[in-house]
Amino acid sequence: MTDKLNKLKTILGEVYDLSTALAVLDWDQQVNMPVAGSDGRASQASTISRMAHEIFVDDGVGELLEALEPYRRELPPDSDDACLLKVARREYNRRKKVPTAYVSEFAAVTSAAHMQWEHARAQADFSIFKPALEKIFRLRREYAGFFAPYDHVYDPLLDEFEPGMKTADVKEIFAQLRPQQVKLIHAIREKTAPDTSFLHQQFDSQQQWNFGVEAAKMIGYDLKRGRQDKAAHPFTTTFNLNDVRITTRIFPDNFSGLFSTLHEAGHAIYEQNISPLLERSPLGTGASLAIHESQSRLWENLVGRSREFWTFFYPRLQAAFPGRFDDVSLEKFYCGINRVEPGLIRVDADEATYNLHVMLRLELEIAVLEGKIAVSDLPEAWNEKMREYLGVTPENDAEGVLQDVHWAGGAIGYFPTYALGNLISAQLRETAEKAIPDLDRQIANGNFQILREWLTENIHRHGSKFEPQKLVEMVTGSKIDPAPYMRYLNRKYGEIYGL
Amino acid sequence: MTDKLNKLKTILGEVYDLSTALAVLDWDQQVNMPVAGSDGRASQASTISRMAHEIFVDDGVGELLEALEPYRRELPPDSDDACLLKVARREYNRRKKVPTAYVSEFAAVTSAAHMQWEHARAQADFSIFKPALEKIFRLRREYAGFFAPYDHVYDPLLDEFEPGMKTADVKEIFAQLRPQQVKLIHAIREKTAPDTSFLHQQFDSQQQWNFGVEAAKMIGYDLKRGRQDKAAHPFTTTFNLNDVRITTRIFPDNFSGLFSTLHEAGHAIYEQNISPLLERSPLGTGASLAIHESQSRLWENLVGRSREFWTFFYPRLQAAFPGRFDDVSLEKFYCGINRVEPGLIRVDADEATYNLHVMLRLELEIAVLEGKIAVSDLPEAWNEKMREYLGVTPENDAEGVLQDVHWAGGAIGYFPTYALGNLISAQLRETAEKAIPDLDRQIANGNFQILREWLTENIHRHGSKFEPQKLVEMVTGSKIDPAPYMRYLNRKYGEIYGL
Repeated sequence: MTDKLNKLKTILGEVYDLSTALAVLDWDQQVNMPVAGSDGRASQASTISRMAHEIFVDDGVGELLEALEPYRRELPPDSDDACLLKVARREYNRRKKVPTAYVSEFAAVTSAAHMQWEHARAQADFSIFKPALEKIFRLRREYAGFFAPYDHVYDPLLDEFEPGMKTADVKEIFAQLRPQQVKLIHAIREKTAPDTSFLHQQFDSQQQWNFGVEAAKMIGYDLKRGRQDKAAHPFTTTFNLNDVRITTRIFPDNFSGLFSTLHEAGHAIYEQNISPLLERSPLGTGASLAIHESQSRLWENLVGRSREFWTFFYPRLQAAFPGRFDDVSLEKFYCGINRVEPGLIRVDADEATYNLHVMLRLELEIAVLEGKIAVSDLPEAWNEKMREYLGVTPENDAEGVLQDVHWAGGAIGYFPTYALGNLISAQLRETAEKAIPDLDRQIANGNFQILREWLTENIHRHGSKFEPQKLVEMVTGSKIDPAPYMRYLNRKYGEIYGL
Repeated sequence: MTDKLNKLKTILGEVYDLSTALAVLDWDQQVNMPVAGSDGRASQASTISRMAHEIFVDDGVGELLEALEPYRRELPPDSDDACLLKVARREYNRRKKVPTAYVSEFAAVTSAAHMQWEHARAQADFSIFKPALEKIFRLRREYAGFFAPYDHVYDPLLDEFEPGMKTADVKEIFAQLRPQQVKLIHAIREKTAPDTSFLHQQFDSQQQWNFGVEAAKMIGYDLKRGRQDKAAHPFTTTFNLNDVRITTRIFPDNFSGLFSTLHEAGHAIYEQNISPLLERSPLGTGASLAIHESQSRLWENLVGRSREFWTFFYPRLQAAFPGRFDDVSLEKFYCGINRVEPGLIRVDADEATYNLHVMLRLELEIAVLEGKIAVSDLPEAWNEKMREYLGVTPENDAEGVLQDVHWAGGAIGYFPTYALGNLISAQLRETAEKAIPDLDRQIANGNFQILREWLTENIHRHGSKFEPQKLVEMVTGSKIDPAPYMRYLNRKYGEIYGL
């Protein structure tokens, strides 16, 4: 059995090497590559991803997994090897069920769709993107079909990003969450908004960069095992557990790049602290997108926009940008960076409104997949929901249905993970507060290590050994639950807005 | 037959994708990667290079080549397809003859040897490196054995870098060249050396960078299809014909980085101008290392250190570094950058002495492979030849036998290509001068396009369709010949030194 297990591990290691090599190719494309290199890069990526796929779905892998099944059942179920066999089997079955012809068609359609989406957004004209999006929804429905029978057509799509998560669970969570978030926003709207004028000044780009790097280091991102570069769309990528890179973008007239850096550093800290024993295997990465997002949002928002964080960092920010904040008290600053402003664009949304953007997308995705609305109805349905949830109306499709790249990439089933990540981040913070009674004081003193270590002990080190719901329950005592996030929002904004 | 040919091309395309993906991994390692990422990177590289090897040496490839042999013989011998089949067959045979076990051992030995060499050089103690180097010479002799029978044990090693080139030819060329170069150096030594004090000043690094980029662009390096980065050891790398990147290093107290940029730009211009019809195949790269070096040395030296080049660029250099060259005439500058100074270190050598460094290494490599001297004799043999050819003696092994990384990497058979490249560069320049009678005037006017286009027409576009000797003969009417290089050196230094 040890021979068979080692053989399997060798194959999975090769798949890991190829997948992380693809990550290098993609990082380079987004950070360095001259546009002219696109065709050649696409060719490299296509060859390597096909090889990774072929190695993984080889019948030999299926036979090894089958032969190792009795062995797995004898192992302690939470042991590394038992989890590896479970996760490898899950991935094998998933990949095996999807025909190669489908994979090729999906790649071709989404590749073309990306250009059509860019064109449509530039023209603010959904009709340009509509035929491509229709194809994508058709293909995603077809994808779900490979996993029939299912409780809900959305289940297989969601499962790709959140293993084990069901659409019914997400719907229930969101059903509890939505009215409470809408109520909070309405209450906030009645109040005077904090001043944010001081956020819109000129901030030297290099100083911003240095400040962001310093902050990322302080919260625990190890730059000896990573680096930060510039990219149009910030992201984090892992080449191995000792080379986890982040990207950011800097705007000269505000310092939102800092929060972007904290966000990506949160992702990277997760990956950097996965147990080295899980490296070069399917377990050597985050448990799911929602768990990943819980880490990025925790550091960006629950820590990075907290009063305690800025108790420590505000004097440093004032020193880094002399004269910019002379007349701005810590309290004024804290309220300013937490101003709630229902808006049209998800990526610009604050903590109080963000989840509503996500729910809107989930509801539309499900409605199209269930056949309740047509793709052509999406712009109007979008605008209606924006009015209902956020009280704002897009002036055109570019500000509405065309704003995100995800659908063009075929990522239907992906959006809920953003909101789930927010909820988990609050659950984790509440649990951490119980384990570390003086956590706030530690943060106000610039000691982030204690929280980072708690997260490593409870979340990071496990990699993807456990499904997200199980992991959250192991750590917090309950599955994904919207209550802590609402408690967090109500307390925070109650205080800022005097509700 | 078309089906078979297309099948072969598909496989060769995959090998190209994997090889160029390896190039991306290597570039990133040298330019960006945190040291901590080394193990993971080595693992990726090892997996991908093994796959490229396995795909290429698959018996199916051999059968396709065999089946296509009659077809090849019917094609015009210089057609793209005929050359592709010929080169693919050559590469297939080469790779097929080397057992996988050997490849693994060689990779392991050279990987360890690199660290031992670094350690030995830091300690200036050859004995630390000796055991590793003995293994490497043993392995290279074993490699030659796979290709027996041969005329000379060095032939198979040389052939890896210079297809079709024989050791006897190189020996004959060098036998003609050596006494003439030694004589020239002796004559120069009798004369007063030009002043070079103005080369050793502080030059702003960013200004140097900008000036180098501008010069690279001017000579024809297309930065829309490439980019320049910093690296400890400058190199050029090709990801595809539209993404050819160079690296350089900048020293604050001299502007030698400019010549490094011109050198690498010469390599890159070659790759960028290979016919797009040859892309994603074994033909879509330079013909050999010597031909490649002829391009880099031509732009670095025969153009980049010429009076005409500086007629155009010197006013620009003066403007870029105000005050630095106020009292330095063009003539004084030209003589300064061409000062001859026999030294210990190959990479710092001037045009008059460089080849002697190379000959020394070739002679030592052959002596060890023929069993005429032992590896342990190398330091003393090295120092003796340095005295004989250049009149200088290393104070220790770090300045002598340990100075180059190449042997640690197993690159025995590689050094002659540097000198051959110099010779070819002069042959090409002489031929170009006949084809473009006012070439000097064009260069003095900053028109480099006419030379670049001539090189593209005669060298670049062919990729590796032709063996180096054939290519040189096609263009210049004779095989690799030391006479033009000696004419070039004698005229240039005759003038500068008044010989």
